[in-house]
Amino acid sequence: MIVELINTGSELMLGRTLNTHQQWLCRRMADLGWPVSRQVAIADTGPEIQQAVRESLGRADLILVTGGLGPTSDDITRELIADLVNKPLRENPAIVAELKRFFAERNRPMPARNLVQAQVPEGAVVLPNPNGTAPGLAIKIEDGSWKMEDGGAGRLQSSTPNPPTAQWIVMLPGPPRELRPMFTDTVVPLLQCELPRQIFVCHTLRTSGIGESALAEIIDGPLQAFIARGLELGYCARPGQVDVRLVARIPQAEALVLDAERIITPLLSRYVYASDDEDLEAVIVRELTARKQTLAIAESCTGGCIAHRITNVPGASAILIAGLVTYANAAKEKFAGVRPETLAAHGAVSEPVAREMAEGARQATGADFALAVTGIAGPSGGTPEKPVGTVFMAVSSAAGTVAVKQLNRFDRETFKDVAAQQVLGMLRRAMV
Amino acid sequence: MIVELINTGSELMLGRTLNTHQQWLCRRMADLGWPVSRQVAIADTGPEIQQAVRESLGRADLILVTGGLGPTSDDITRELIADLVNKPLRENPAIVAELKRFFAERNRPMPARNLVQAQVPEGAVVLPNPNGTAPGLAIKIEDGSWKMEDGGAGRLQSSTPNPPTAQWIVMLPGPPRELRPMFTDTVVPLLQCELPRQIFVCHTLRTSGIGESALAEIIDGPLQAFIARGLELGYCARPGQVDVRLVARIPQAEALVLDAERIITPLLSRYVYASDDEDLEAVIVRELTARKQTLAIAESCTGGCIAHRITNVPGASAILIAGLVTYANAAKEKFAGVRPETLAAHGAVSEPVAREMAEGARQATGADFALAVTGIAGPSGGTPEKPVGTVFMAVSSAAGTVAVKQLNRFDRETFKDVAAQQVLGMLRRAMV
Repeated sequence: MIVELINTGSELMLGRTLNTHQQWLCRRMADLGWPVSRQVAIADTGPEIQQAVRESLGRADLILVTGGLGPTSDDITRELIADLVNKPLRENPAIVAELKRFFAERNRPMPARNLVQAQVPEGAVVLPNPNGTAPGLAIKIEDGSWKMEDGGAGRLQSSTPNPPTAQWIVMLPGPPRELRPMFTDTVVPLLQCELPRQIFVCHTLRTSGIGESALAEIIDGPLQAFIARGLELGYCARPGQVDVRLVARIPQAEALVLDAERIITPLLSRYVYASDDEDLEAVIVRELTARKQTLAIAESCTGGCIAHRITNVPGASAILIAGLVTYANAAKEKFAGVRPETLAAHGAVSEPVAREMAEGARQATGADFALAVTGIAGPSGGTPEKPVGTVFMAVSSAAGTVAVKQLNRFDRETFKDVAAQQVLGMLRRAMV
Repeated sequence: MIVELINTGSELMLGRTLNTHQQWLCRRMADLGWPVSRQVAIADTGPEIQQAVRESLGRADLILVTGGLGPTSDDITRELIADLVNKPLRENPAIVAELKRFFAERNRPMPARNLVQAQVPEGAVVLPNPNGTAPGLAIKIEDGSWKMEDGGAGRLQSSTPNPPTAQWIVMLPGPPRELRPMFTDTVVPLLQCELPRQIFVCHTLRTSGIGESALAEIIDGPLQAFIARGLELGYCARPGQVDVRLVARIPQAEALVLDAERIITPLLSRYVYASDDEDLEAVIVRELTARKQTLAIAESCTGGCIAHRITNVPGASAILIAGLVTYANAAKEKFAGVRPETLAAHGAVSEPVAREMAEGARQATGADFALAVTGIAGPSGGTPEKPVGTVFMAVSSAAGTVAVKQLNRFDRETFKDVAAQQVLGMLRRAMV
């Protein structure tokens, strides 16, 4: 089964928007056992959309298309795909009624242009959209029923031995808050009904504190026997971390991946902080919750990034008492209890201030653990002794306070993210 | 000039990583006047990479390829592309010396596998990588010199009247902190030297407080004359905001776009908060800095998201005194001065608590403006009276305190982001 994803939107091609659909949909499809083999982004103008869908129809059994279902003049995906697959559009009375209800509920007049969203290609399945006005559409294509550029009929060039008898195009609205519930509630059940199941198992070990090539030197050898049996090994390096990915698509895939994981986990025990794609902040919230312990955060240069990551985890309110973004020196004194003489003697970016921030935050909140970060995110503010990228981090608990210095020469946002990752890693080690 | 972008990486296809390269590179290329017309992501295994590059060679004058230049076994992009374009790989002694220096500087032994990064396709330009071990590569392709699947030679099917005499493939390393400086420092000068200039102007107006179709009803009519002269009009709806994009690619493009912007700006004055893609947080930091005023933030349900966004703006330290993530009720009392009786009478998620948080944060910090957010991010914690998504927001200044209630029924992370956007919008309106 070959799955392709097409994201339409001129804002994508102009770099005005981050394509979060790719990660979200690819992740969901992999978890369902149907990994996406190709993703394409193109502008939402006519020829590009038809050409991209036509190419995918020549390869794929399922094509997911996002965007272009809105009410404005640049939303023409519905028309273009209906034309490509020779399905005339018809106004669907149920959708018209739903549109009228949507606007009436909000006490707003329905703009006439919204009626285009009630146009449905003949025979298509309508996917309800409780969070917006554009319903999704699922079109079943019988073999060889789309238009080629030369006017002939298309034909699936499937490389699978027993290709499905039909292909599907699923069209989803662009806004994530409309697309995601529609995919989960309507598309997944439809696909599970219509498409053959496949074997696909993927486990990820997340490491920090070791480089990609040093890590490969440790595990490539021991994994050779597994690779010979069908294991696929992958690496992904990011600032402050390297992910190791173990994939199998054969019968007994689960056992093969688990055996491989059991072999390498002890070899990497110093470096692995999570398996199965869990974020460091999720590990910390889970472990502190289990231990009924609490956390306080005092951030200067990371500016709320750490608290933001911790509070992205559902249930974080059970463990986080407070995050103090003490950006000004006066705030470091008032909220985190840093002494003015420490600031005067060492400067705000110093190990003594990091220690006092952590200890002060812990004391002010009564938390079991407190972490603190102070540094120079840049782009300006560096000095010869403390260049941009300098950061001091501290973790305080009943066992005492530990502090380290790092130099993270990145752009401002990467700097914040890497420093957050580093101090969360320190916290986790302090919790062991 | 046709530009295509190919992102390689199995982690992309499995949804383990967000593809930030697409937005970053597409934005840079559009700003340089060479917008990307198609982006493709594929796994970093052999056949897919060669097939995607081969297809792009049939269409594009410039192909940017990211990823697959690392030292591990799944990094095979260099070999595959060299093979495709018939350029034998040769070890480059300067890169070997640079690799040895890189590891010596860090007091680490060089893993033998890193030597593969010194392999250079014959005639390729080496792009130095001061932030990592994988140099980039730029390969110039003369017409018809790549391998087709059937063994024949490829040929560019250019639709431009005067296609350039050569095509380029530029290969960049995957890690953003290596790719971005390499692109800016080395690739841009190379492209400006080698490629023809193009006309391309893009302005974006960012609006909040109005829906996509209502917005289109206001401006579509007045813009018809501009569209007839070559203006391209686009919309992008996101939670809490709609962007309007004005693009032109004709001579006098700048004048056409500016004239169109002048016509619609007064029609949308209530809704436009920024032009030219500026984020709301950047507008706020810029305006407060100019007015020499300061800000304090008290967040409960947004958990640091607002402080994180404000501190992503370079220079935020001039205006932000403190952000208080008062997650526990005790923290709301201690740091933001919320009265226990208010919490007891109304609950933490209430308008009186939002007001007291904003007023308390302003008083505790002496800031000119303070904003506060308290709500239920979910997925649990809702009640019939205060369902998940309920949020109270307040902005306090010398002029007084305003508060509003919103219901944002999104997933946890979108909820945080939308609430942050709403309260920053309130702050900006309070600043006018």
